[in-house]
Amino acid sequence: MLADGEIDLYFSQLEKCQDKVTGAKEVTDGEISIAFQPSGRRGTASPDKTILEIARDVGVEIESVCGGKGVCGKCRVRIESVGPAETPEALPVSPPTEAELRLLGQQLLKSGMRLACQTFVRGDVQVYVPEESRRATQVVRKEASERTVPLDPAVKVLEIKLQPPNLEDLQADTDRLLSSLAREHGLANLECDLEVIQNLPATLRQADWKLTAVVWQDKHVIAALSGSQPAPVLGLAVDVGTTTIAAYLVDLTTGAVLATESAMNPQVAWGDDVITRMQHAKQTPGGAKELQEAVISEINLLARKATERVGASTADIFDVVMVGNTAMHHLFMGIDPAPLLAAPFAPAVQKPLDVKASAIGLGFHPGCRLHVLPVEAGFVGADNVAVLIAERPYDQDEILLLIDIGTNGELVLGNRHRLLSTSCATGPALEGAHLEFGMRAAPGAIERVRIDPQTLEVKFKVIGLEGWNSDYEGSEIGARGICGSGIIEAVSEMLQAGVIRADGGFSTNLNHPRIVLENGRPHKFVIAWAKETALGRDITVSIKDIRAVQLAKGALRAGAEILLRTLGVPKPDRVILAGAFGSYIDVEHALAIGMFPDCPLDRVTSVGNAAGDGARFALLNRERRREAEWVARQVEYVELATRKDFMTEFVKAMQLGQENPG
Amino acid sequence: MLADGEIDLYFSQLEKCQDKVTGAKEVTDGEISIAFQPSGRRGTASPDKTILEIARDVGVEIESVCGGKGVCGKCRVRIESVGPAETPEALPVSPPTEAELRLLGQQLLKSGMRLACQTFVRGDVQVYVPEESRRATQVVRKEASERTVPLDPAVKVLEIKLQPPNLEDLQADTDRLLSSLAREHGLANLECDLEVIQNLPATLRQADWKLTAVVWQDKHVIAALSGSQPAPVLGLAVDVGTTTIAAYLVDLTTGAVLATESAMNPQVAWGDDVITRMQHAKQTPGGAKELQEAVISEINLLARKATERVGASTADIFDVVMVGNTAMHHLFMGIDPAPLLAAPFAPAVQKPLDVKASAIGLGFHPGCRLHVLPVEAGFVGADNVAVLIAERPYDQDEILLLIDIGTNGELVLGNRHRLLSTSCATGPALEGAHLEFGMRAAPGAIERVRIDPQTLEVKFKVIGLEGWNSDYEGSEIGARGICGSGIIEAVSEMLQAGVIRADGGFSTNLNHPRIVLENGRPHKFVIAWAKETALGRDITVSIKDIRAVQLAKGALRAGAEILLRTLGVPKPDRVILAGAFGSYIDVEHALAIGMFPDCPLDRVTSVGNAAGDGARFALLNRERRREAEWVARQVEYVELATRKDFMTEFVKAMQLGQENPG
Repeated sequence: MLADGEIDLYFSQLEKCQDKVTGAKEVTDGEISIAFQPSGRRGTASPDKTILEIARDVGVEIESVCGGKGVCGKCRVRIESVGPAETPEALPVSPPTEAELRLLGQQLLKSGMRLACQTFVRGDVQVYVPEESRRATQVVRKEASERTVPLDPAVKVLEIKLQPPNLEDLQADTDRLLSSLAREHGLANLECDLEVIQNLPATLRQADWKLTAVVWQDKHVIAALSGSQPAPVLGLAVDVGTTTIAAYLVDLTTGAVLATESAMNPQVAWGDDVITRMQHAKQTPGGAKELQEAVISEINLLARKATERVGASTADIFDVVMVGNTAMHHLFMGIDPAPLLAAPFAPAVQKPLDVKASAIGLGFHPGCRLHVLPVEAGFVGADNVAVLIAERPYDQDEILLLIDIGTNGELVLGNRHRLLSTSCATGPALEGAHLEFGMRAAPGAIERVRIDPQTLEVKFKVIGLEGWNSDYEGSEIGARGICGSGIIEAVSEMLQAGVIRADGGFSTNLNHPRIVLENGRPHKFVIAWAKETALGRDITVSIKDIRAVQLAKGALRAGAEILLRTLGVPKPDRVILAGAFGSYIDVEHALAIGMFPDCPLDRVTSVGNAAGDGARFALLNRERRREAEWVARQVEYVELATRKDFMTEFVKAMQLGQENPG
Repeated sequence: MLADGEIDLYFSQLEKCQDKVTGAKEVTDGEISIAFQPSGRRGTASPDKTILEIARDVGVEIESVCGGKGVCGKCRVRIESVGPAETPEALPVSPPTEAELRLLGQQLLKSGMRLACQTFVRGDVQVYVPEESRRATQVVRKEASERTVPLDPAVKVLEIKLQPPNLEDLQADTDRLLSSLAREHGLANLECDLEVIQNLPATLRQADWKLTAVVWQDKHVIAALSGSQPAPVLGLAVDVGTTTIAAYLVDLTTGAVLATESAMNPQVAWGDDVITRMQHAKQTPGGAKELQEAVISEINLLARKATERVGASTADIFDVVMVGNTAMHHLFMGIDPAPLLAAPFAPAVQKPLDVKASAIGLGFHPGCRLHVLPVEAGFVGADNVAVLIAERPYDQDEILLLIDIGTNGELVLGNRHRLLSTSCATGPALEGAHLEFGMRAAPGAIERVRIDPQTLEVKFKVIGLEGWNSDYEGSEIGARGICGSGIIEAVSEMLQAGVIRADGGFSTNLNHPRIVLENGRPHKFVIAWAKETALGRDITVSIKDIRAVQLAKGALRAGAEILLRTLGVPKPDRVILAGAFGSYIDVEHALAIGMFPDCPLDRVTSVGNAAGDGARFALLNRERRREAEWVARQVEYVELATRKDFMTEFVKAMQLGQENPG
């Protein structure tokens, strides 16, 4: 059991977590002359690109927490000569920078070690990327689901044929277009974007007075394209998570998802968690702009990749829907996040926003619109609203408990009669961060764990390999750490095998090679032996790791219990797990440690990235936008901080196991 | 009488007129070390400014048609040493540029002549500005009239006090502001500009939750200012004429005109007339942008001067109304003017436009809106609509003939039952351009002329002197040319004195020192003797000048006659002369040559810059904007080009005198 002091400490740590988390981007191959080892990739070097940039171009992933600013010192590489060995000073690379002197020191520099982000290549070299600098591409689990919605997008595509003016009919081009849209499509009182008016004369005359009008919300003509639908009319649904950004490219005339792209949120370079980022935005001049530009340029990049994949262009994107938690929402829109940093944590805006996508730097069609779903309250953001319009508990009789676990946990409980929501500081432990061997869901991460209660022998699976560890030779396994779903299983199996007790402490009566002692007391449990890892040392779960899982689980469970009590029901009829984490955890193991209220297994559903689905539905169906605006106002936000019963619930809920001693 | 061929030639010339017309900007005194002669102004030189720029800074006006691009060669000055005379090569100025070699040649350069726009000063020099390079500041006659309109501006200013959020009331800042505006001011369904939302948290917390909301058209919150109306809320009415730009700075909370600023339209550097400018926009890549930026930056400058004059800032401007002829309108808004260059001359847009002022580069408050009055048809533009909402013929029983003479002539005839309009190519003669001694209404321009029918002696008045020429010694008079009102009087007086006949030709039976012969035939009439001028030669009116006046007058009169015929009335009940020219011509003289249909003198009114008044009324009264939109659609445009009777009318109307032989 944790003392109150520890709980406070935990919360204060949650606000300051600044561990390094790094992102992975998709890359394409190219021609480069520099040779990277051990991957063996090579091509032609470019004199104005750092080794880090060249590596990215050819798909060699090098760790870089600070994003290439020469601050974190993580992108260490060793420069080697391609011909006969030479001294590091003689190698054809740029001289060491001050940042390198500071972060590496003379000794490492003399050994040929350099920072990839600081070094330019001037001639043929070989670059060795040591294990600790290699970055594994995270498995971003945010595919669009198969679910569909009736097609009624905000952006409509209309073909028009106009009569040219003559001396008897001198109507102006713009007024002519608007009259025709009113007459033939019943769209009265339309306005034209200035850009449309500016270019309409040329468009009409080039296209022999035939054009395709793109109309937004039956209100604005946002584009006039030459001829009969000369290019696809695309939309982009964007889910900006604290850690991951997912973008779904959709054909607005068919509703089909054409491509999905995702990437780490580049804002992680300014801090893992939303609080650190918002503090940066508040305290650093230009900080908010910096964070906004980082996420916007990443979305521009994702859009370029997605459109290129289908032979289109970003200029074919005419509508964007964005969802995200309140902090992501504010930083994305360039809105002062200061009120979210102090009680009572009121957001700057709740209502949905409609602006031109160009207003915040999205580089799509000049007429492209951006719709941002409404925020519910405080930290229950537009992402949660998106989950609601995807799952529609407001349309059902059953009491649903919606759990969306990302970097923060968000809960909604209720049905058509009443909906409650809250947010809990689950912290990053459930994403595999802040644990001794924690890592994100990337190749090499232990994601499944089984412990034999009799022998305490461990079976595990790592991402990237088909079978269990026992199916491979030790050296083939190459485990690198434990991801979120892995830690849940590990703790749950340790509990069920009697390695730990319900209060999280180690059982004292055990003696086993896997139990590591410290000062004579059990302290860690070995999941993978050194030989099964790529690290050369045992991968363990420590008492501190278990505490982190307890805190996260406790916060989530306490939130759920308080919602149930507020609604006056003992338990939900259904549990829906949303978010990438919800898709990959093993429900039985999660239930076994009591992560959420007990519920028959067949009443627990994983819905994947429901926030992304909600964004896509809002892109394709205007009614869902209206529902979102309505439901955001309907949901009653339960502020846990003001609940007298929260601390008691929280302490109880940290017990591992389903029998919540409430 | 002109032959048909001459008429065609005239029209083709109208389309190609590219004579140099230059502008005058207000300047302020400053410290400069360079000494200008003959004005004697001096101060401290700046090494990165050309002599032209330094001259502007100290208020020495030097002719510059091309705006300092080294193209026109008009800004010739002579560099002189301040101490003992030195050779030009030894003077402390930058070496001649290629432009100077081309435009001045070696000989002039050797004499010390330079182009002011190409020359930088490196040490003490004296700069002599020869007469032909001196530019007189035009008397811009576009003061706001005293007329007022009921105050109901599109932009309203509302003071608001909000309750800060607390744990029981977590409403977001933006939603809180909107609820309060709905509750206290009855403004439901307001939208907030993104910039307002972005900065609202800081604004509210700095101002202790008291703010001033600026609301546009009861639809959008365009600004939220800290505290109770911390700064004035200003509007700007802008009349963009082909030649002159006038800007009226208005207090939107009182309706008072705080300042008026005007300047030459800098687009004259690309051509006097709208056709040349639009051709530049169409044919030159980036040409449209260039023309737009020229006029926008001039308006930004006028706004800065006007706001500084009243101790305010351009950021205090929240609403702008722009009027102008269709070409000015299109170029100002960045709209492709190509359709105005070819039959049937349909504009790109007729309806009124509402955009953010920043969308076209106006540097006012970020939320500032821009309203552009509607265009009527073809070349009858938003300036004519502005005249209509200032004069409101649609509200009257009397048949009004509205004549707006600028670089083009626009006519409206009618009353509440029917309104007709047309435009006539009056050309620049009526503005004093394209005449042998024509000049704009600037100091030294002859503006009044009297000819004694007995003696043919001439009395005249020049702008800048109180009395007639006979009140001064010859050298004090310093006439420099004839402006628009002067040429009308000169021609009218020459007709009445029998110097010329009704067909415009010189009477052959006269013998007088003022009549100059060419090949034995009368050719010119002397208005001012050389000694009365600043030019050192006689200022005359030639047969060619008379022809130009006839063509302009003929076009205007023919247009009026065709409107009368179309409406089915013999003559108007009232004539209203709008525009600067209309304010300064002598009505009796204009009637005497038959510029417009006969009408009792007391039924002819000059209303000054009615277009500017209309723009100001639209800024201050939303009903006038609605009237403008309505009347622009009501007015029937009469296309003279399609009228079979136009050429006959035109040829008749070129007769000088009121007895129009129709």
